[in-house]
Amino acid sequence: MSVSGLFKSTQCLKKTEFVTILSRLYVNILRMIPINEAKKIIDDNIVKTTLTEPVSLEDAFGRALAYDAKSDVDVPPFNRATMDGYAVVSSDGAGEYEVIEYVPAGVFPTKKLEKGYVTRIMTGAPVPEGADAVVQVEKTGGFVEVGEKAEIKASFKPGQNISPHGEDVKTGDTVLEAGSRITAPESATLATAGHDPVTVFKLPTVAILSTGDEVIEPSEKPVPGQIRNSNAYSLKSQAVDIGLNPDLIGVAHDTEEDLTAKIMEGAKRDFLLVSGGVSAGDRDMVPRILEKAGYKILLHKVAVKPGKPLVFGVAEGPRYVFGVPGNPVSGLVIFELFIKPAILKWMGFSNTKHFVVNAPLADGFKRKKADRVEYIPVQLEWTGEGFIAHRIKYHGSGHMHALTRANGLYKIPKGVTEVAPGHAGEVIVLKYGWR
Amino acid sequence: MSVSGLFKSTQCLKKTEFVTILSRLYVNILRMIPINEAKKIIDDNIVKTTLTEPVSLEDAFGRALAYDAKSDVDVPPFNRATMDGYAVVSSDGAGEYEVIEYVPAGVFPTKKLEKGYVTRIMTGAPVPEGADAVVQVEKTGGFVEVGEKAEIKASFKPGQNISPHGEDVKTGDTVLEAGSRITAPESATLATAGHDPVTVFKLPTVAILSTGDEVIEPSEKPVPGQIRNSNAYSLKSQAVDIGLNPDLIGVAHDTEEDLTAKIMEGAKRDFLLVSGGVSAGDRDMVPRILEKAGYKILLHKVAVKPGKPLVFGVAEGPRYVFGVPGNPVSGLVIFELFIKPAILKWMGFSNTKHFVVNAPLADGFKRKKADRVEYIPVQLEWTGEGFIAHRIKYHGSGHMHALTRANGLYKIPKGVTEVAPGHAGEVIVLKYGWR
Repeated sequence: MSVSGLFKSTQCLKKTEFVTILSRLYVNILRMIPINEAKKIIDDNIVKTTLTEPVSLEDAFGRALAYDAKSDVDVPPFNRATMDGYAVVSSDGAGEYEVIEYVPAGVFPTKKLEKGYVTRIMTGAPVPEGADAVVQVEKTGGFVEVGEKAEIKASFKPGQNISPHGEDVKTGDTVLEAGSRITAPESATLATAGHDPVTVFKLPTVAILSTGDEVIEPSEKPVPGQIRNSNAYSLKSQAVDIGLNPDLIGVAHDTEEDLTAKIMEGAKRDFLLVSGGVSAGDRDMVPRILEKAGYKILLHKVAVKPGKPLVFGVAEGPRYVFGVPGNPVSGLVIFELFIKPAILKWMGFSNTKHFVVNAPLADGFKRKKADRVEYIPVQLEWTGEGFIAHRIKYHGSGHMHALTRANGLYKIPKGVTEVAPGHAGEVIVLKYGWR
Repeated sequence: MSVSGLFKSTQCLKKTEFVTILSRLYVNILRMIPINEAKKIIDDNIVKTTLTEPVSLEDAFGRALAYDAKSDVDVPPFNRATMDGYAVVSSDGAGEYEVIEYVPAGVFPTKKLEKGYVTRIMTGAPVPEGADAVVQVEKTGGFVEVGEKAEIKASFKPGQNISPHGEDVKTGDTVLEAGSRITAPESATLATAGHDPVTVFKLPTVAILSTGDEVIEPSEKPVPGQIRNSNAYSLKSQAVDIGLNPDLIGVAHDTEEDLTAKIMEGAKRDFLLVSGGVSAGDRDMVPRILEKAGYKILLHKVAVKPGKPLVFGVAEGPRYVFGVPGNPVSGLVIFELFIKPAILKWMGFSNTKHFVVNAPLADGFKRKKADRVEYIPVQLEWTGEGFIAHRIKYHGSGHMHALTRANGLYKIPKGVTEVAPGHAGEVIVLKYGWR
């Protein structure tokens, strides 16, 4: 945007206009930051939380474990038979031996085994004290009843067909590391190792603020010039998906007073997400008011499409603000690329990565300007051997409707104006299967 | 299991023992049902819910939309400029024309355009009434101020560089179909189309019951012969992941009274998941008591490893019961393969599919018996070109700890005893990226 474009007053310049122009120029003279540099600036500033809380194991799904969880038991807790057969004293060797007990899985043996006897045993059951091997039934004369004589045909070694207690986990072993996301196998592992309640990292508080005089809520009917607030709902969904419960704190009008009041309210949270008011073309006071609210602005513009304007700031606490463009496709992409990994890091997760695959772009792609990395929405199809990415009919960054049919974002690198049909590129997976 | 194995009484047969033996035989004479046949039996019996409820759009994440959502507005709501430049009357042709207004994005034009004049306009802004084309700035003498004359160099056609109102969505168009899962793009789409609150399918009520005298809770310390209840926590995590909030209704002792009481309690729910007590080797009364509670048992054993025993039953309502083996790896696999798609269908989702990819098994695999499909836990690695599946060190179906390092289940087909290293097979993706 040119200075003449900003200087629309034909008479003279009021002080407030002068300030507005200066702040816009300040934003505009900053170069577009490459994606990886922007990610590094964010990552260098996000401090992982140290706050923890105990939660009941059954409510721990999706949380980040805050400590290395050790086991207070051996797993298996006993010497476990790995075959159906007879528990034996290995020095007895082949021969006929009286069966003193029958131990199915889930039952604990009550009789110590002595030389000259055997215990009939099933896979998974505890091997009785005194036994040091299990002979599988195929190498015997078959199953007989307690009190009868079993024929052991094979020779066998000590330890044969026994999974010794503690083979999987020994008491004191770390079974799950701090930073693990607790899903089904982690829940079962923590249960087995005796962890309930579990200590997890606290969740951040998050506020989502929309801005713009023209923005109305979805339940209202727009008149010409008005648009419905969709970005806040999209951002909230993305935040809920990673386990957060953000507050929508409304729509701020484009006035100093309203923006200041709502930004001050949002700035109490660990993360404030502001939608709109950050583009150079906007009548935006947002970055300036964010600075007034105590945020140091570290990013203004990132070389990515959709989504060039991206404000990132840090205040005491530290607390963080992200400003995203007001259109929902840009907001969605910016959240996916920059905000999600940042919040996941804050939350204490050791893995904050996207799921990225490689796929040929079936339809190819052309663009005129190649000064930014561009992400285009695609439908990833699994052919049985690999992925193919199909472009979605898509009319630009306001066209969210198209994105409901997309499950990936295909990356067009900087400097590339044309992707030939079938050319493979990186795709960030957004959804898969039933998700 | 042989009859002699069941007939342990050496004296005579009490009536209760006789009943137990008969019920076990009844279970055991049933053949193992192939996976696809079992899935069909379940699918044929699961009835999608018809119950709906309104929820606030901001709370709709993860829910199934219960109706075809139509738009009450055009998108875009106005003729939108797709280039920075000048809005013109196309019949004017090239020439010099006075600029009557400047319309940035987010601002609505106030002046109708007449022949002989132009309006300076930015990408995304509404084209003023009277204008029928936008000339991009590159084909003009550049931007000038309102009141000055702009030089239009090129000829242009009606409609050029205008996205007409309703191009993406017309009023009355269906923007989202019933059965869609509401995530970020769907939230934004519903917001734009004016849907708040949204009507979604109700969630099912779900109870999880563990069984077994030897089972204690994770907060308790096991004595020899006791094991901690891990399966219920694993199942609950899997259920929460698909949006449910199941109740853990405790551990039932292996008595007729306690099992009956707890099964009756759980049977009030739409879905009852019973862990343990369904294996042939168990001292199980579970299937019989489920029948007493009104469930018709349609499945007992499925040809899958881990997890052969799988009880599926239907009662009036319809209400459903799944009985899964007591060890957590089996329970996890059974939930993933059979229970998750069933509940997702009940919930009204049109997509209930797993995310399945193809990957070579780096380490190969051997087994002796090939009478069942087997799923082995693997770590899927994305090499940049494709997936490779690495086996996890894994000591059988009780070894849940290993599964925390797995993100996929590699399928060994029935009849296959050996998979050569590098041989590609189907893998169900359990986790990806930060998940």
